[in-house]
Amino acid sequence: MTGGKDLSNGIRRNDRLMADGRTIRYYDTADQKRNAPDLRPVEEQAGIGELRLDPLVNEWVVVAAHRQGRVFLPPKELCPLCPTTGELLTEIPERDFEVVVFDNRSPSLRPPTGDWALPDQIGPDTDIGTAAGKCEVICFTADHGKSFKDLTPARVRTLLEAWVDRTEELSHEPFIEHIALFENRGEEVGVTLSHPHSQIYAYSYLPPRVEKMLGVAKAHKEVNGRILFDEILAREIRDEERIIARNDRWIAFVPYASRYPFEIHVAPLNPVADLATLSEADRDAFPEIALEVMKRLDGVFGIEMAYVATWHQAPVRTGRDVLRLHWQITSVRRAPGKLKYLAGSESAMGAFIMDMRPEQSAAQLREVKL
Amino acid sequence: MTGGKDLSNGIRRNDRLMADGRTIRYYDTADQKRNAPDLRPVEEQAGIGELRLDPLVNEWVVVAAHRQGRVFLPPKELCPLCPTTGELLTEIPERDFEVVVFDNRSPSLRPPTGDWALPDQIGPDTDIGTAAGKCEVICFTADHGKSFKDLTPARVRTLLEAWVDRTEELSHEPFIEHIALFENRGEEVGVTLSHPHSQIYAYSYLPPRVEKMLGVAKAHKEVNGRILFDEILAREIRDEERIIARNDRWIAFVPYASRYPFEIHVAPLNPVADLATLSEADRDAFPEIALEVMKRLDGVFGIEMAYVATWHQAPVRTGRDVLRLHWQITSVRRAPGKLKYLAGSESAMGAFIMDMRPEQSAAQLREVKL
Repeated sequence: MTGGKDLSNGIRRNDRLMADGRTIRYYDTADQKRNAPDLRPVEEQAGIGELRLDPLVNEWVVVAAHRQGRVFLPPKELCPLCPTTGELLTEIPERDFEVVVFDNRSPSLRPPTGDWALPDQIGPDTDIGTAAGKCEVICFTADHGKSFKDLTPARVRTLLEAWVDRTEELSHEPFIEHIALFENRGEEVGVTLSHPHSQIYAYSYLPPRVEKMLGVAKAHKEVNGRILFDEILAREIRDEERIIARNDRWIAFVPYASRYPFEIHVAPLNPVADLATLSEADRDAFPEIALEVMKRLDGVFGIEMAYVATWHQAPVRTGRDVLRLHWQITSVRRAPGKLKYLAGSESAMGAFIMDMRPEQSAAQLREVKL
Repeated sequence: MTGGKDLSNGIRRNDRLMADGRTIRYYDTADQKRNAPDLRPVEEQAGIGELRLDPLVNEWVVVAAHRQGRVFLPPKELCPLCPTTGELLTEIPERDFEVVVFDNRSPSLRPPTGDWALPDQIGPDTDIGTAAGKCEVICFTADHGKSFKDLTPARVRTLLEAWVDRTEELSHEPFIEHIALFENRGEEVGVTLSHPHSQIYAYSYLPPRVEKMLGVAKAHKEVNGRILFDEILAREIRDEERIIARNDRWIAFVPYASRYPFEIHVAPLNPVADLATLSEADRDAFPEIALEVMKRLDGVFGIEMAYVATWHQAPVRTGRDVLRLHWQITSVRRAPGKLKYLAGSESAMGAFIMDMRPEQSAAQLREVKL
C-alpha cells in the first residue's frame, strides 16, 4: 500500500506503510519524496474491542480495554507525533511534514476481519458486537508547540483537503456508517498527547447524538417540508447578535441555545451534507474564517483555551438530504480560573445548565482585537 | 412557613424561614428545638432563568446567567454549608444539625410566578420559556471534612427519609415533571462547595436522558410485555460477575455496558417507581448497602474518588408503570493519576468509549477489604 494521488489545490498525497502494517499518508503542497522507512521494531497490535448495548437508552458503548496502557502525556522529547530525529523514532518516519494522517496505534474502533454485522438491538439480551470502524490521527504541524490558530492559511487549506480526502475514502468502506473529525486541545478535555493533532472516528453505527439529530431533522422536514439546519442558519443571520465572523461563503456564530460557556458553530452558507461535497470555492474560503474563529477564542481571556472542535457531517448512507455539515467548537473554560464541568444535571440527566447568555459570549468573542 | 411533620422511623421535620424568604427544613431523629433565626442581611434574589430549545436535537437548555457569580470553592472557614458559629453566619442558622434541606441560593430552576407553561417545541422558532422548577441543597453532616461513607447507618436512614419526603412534596407541585437527586463529590466533577452535600433538581420538563429512557422502556413493554429495568436486573443477577454487594432487599452492580471507569447501579429487589413509593423495609435496608458501596469505591485506589451519585426516578406524571428507581454512581477516576474525560466522541457524538471492562471494574470493587 504505497502509492499517491493528486488532490485539489495542487496537493499531493503519498502513502507509505509503517513497520507494523499501518498506513501513513503524507499530504504535501509541493512534490516531496516521502520515502523514509519506519525503523521501529514491530509491536503486536491489540485485538478489536467490544460493542455492548446500554439497554436503558438503547445506545452502543464501545469497550476497548486494550487502550488503557496507551501513551499518556509523554514529555516533549518523547513525543510520538513529532517528526523522527536521530534520537527518536516516532510515528512519522520523515524528518519533516506538512499534514500526515495515519492509522491510530491504540484505536477504539478497528476494521473488522471477515463477515461483520451489528447485532439487533433487543434490550438486555442483545449479543456483544465488535467495535468495528476506524480511528486515524492527523498531524498538521511538525512544530510541537504550535496550535491550529498559528497555522498559515495554506496549511489550513491542506489540512482541510486531508479531512475531505479521508471522508471521501472512508465513506466507501462497507463497515462505516458515520465519520466524525475532532480536534481536542488541552488537558482539561483529556488530551493525552499535547502535540497538536486532530482525529478521525469512523463509526460502524450511528452515534447517539447523530441518531437524535437525524430523527429531529427528518420529523422537521416531514412537518414543515424544510431542512432544519437551513432554518437555524436563517434565524442566526436574522438575529445577527450571535454572529462572530463571516465571509462570502462561511458564517460563524454562537448558537441560540449553546451548551458551553463558549460554543461556536461554523457553517458554509451553501449547505452541503459533508466535507466531501464541499465546493472548491468553499474549501478555499475556509482557512480565513477558521483562523479568525480560533484567534477570537484564545483572545477572550488571552490564554490557550481548551476546546473540542468537531466536524458534524451527514451519515454515510442515510439522512444525506436532511443533515448538514457544520464545525462545532466547544470550550469548557468559563473564566480564567474556572471550568464548566458536566455534573449531575448534564451527565446523568442530559439536562444542560448554562451560566452565561449566548449573546454575552458572542459579544466577548466579537470584541477580541485580532 | 414554619411548622413540623412526623415522618417514618421517628424522624421529625421542622421548617423555618430564612432571612430572604427561603425555607430551611431540619430533619432530626430526636426532638430538637430548631429556632435559631437567620441573622444575615436580606440579599436581593436573582430572577428566573430562560429555557431555550436546542433545535438540532429538540432539547431544552437552561440559561441561568445570574449564577455566574455564585460562591466558588470558598476556604473552610467561610463555608456556607457549615453550621452558624459566633464568627460566621451561614446558610444553616443552627449551631448543629443532622440533615437539613434548604432552597438553593443560586438556583438554576425556580418556582414560576403566575401562569406558567412550557412553550411548544417547534424548531428554531420556539419561544423562550422560563426555567421553572426547584433546586434544593441537602446537608447531611455538620462536619466539613466528612464524606457520605463516614456517616452512621442511622444518619443515612435520616438522609434517605429527607430524600423521600422532598420527592413526595415536590411531586405535588403542578410545575414539576421530574425530580432528580444528586451528590457530586470532588473538584474533578465541578464541585464548587467542598462541604459534603446533595442536591435536588426538580425540572419542569423531562430531562433528555429521562425522555430517552422513557421512550425505550415504553417500546420494550409494547413489544415484550415486560418492564425493561426488571429484565436488566434479572440479567445482572443471572450473570453474577458484575455484582459488587447485596443484601435481602437491595443489589449493587457494575452495569453490563457501563460508561465510566467506575459505575455502580444500586436498586431495590422489589422494584418501585420512585423514592416516595419505597417500602419501610427497603428504606431500613438501604444504609448498609449504600455505605458498603461508597467504601468499596474509595477503597479501590485508597483515595477519595470523585463521583456523581444520582437517584433516577420515574417522572412525576408519566411512565410510572415502566421506569424504576435506581441509584447510579459514576466516577471519572480511571487510575490514581488519570481521569476519564468526555472528549470528542462522548461530548459531540454521545458515543462512549470505555477503556476498562465492566467485569474488571466489578472485580476491583469486590476485592476491596472493608
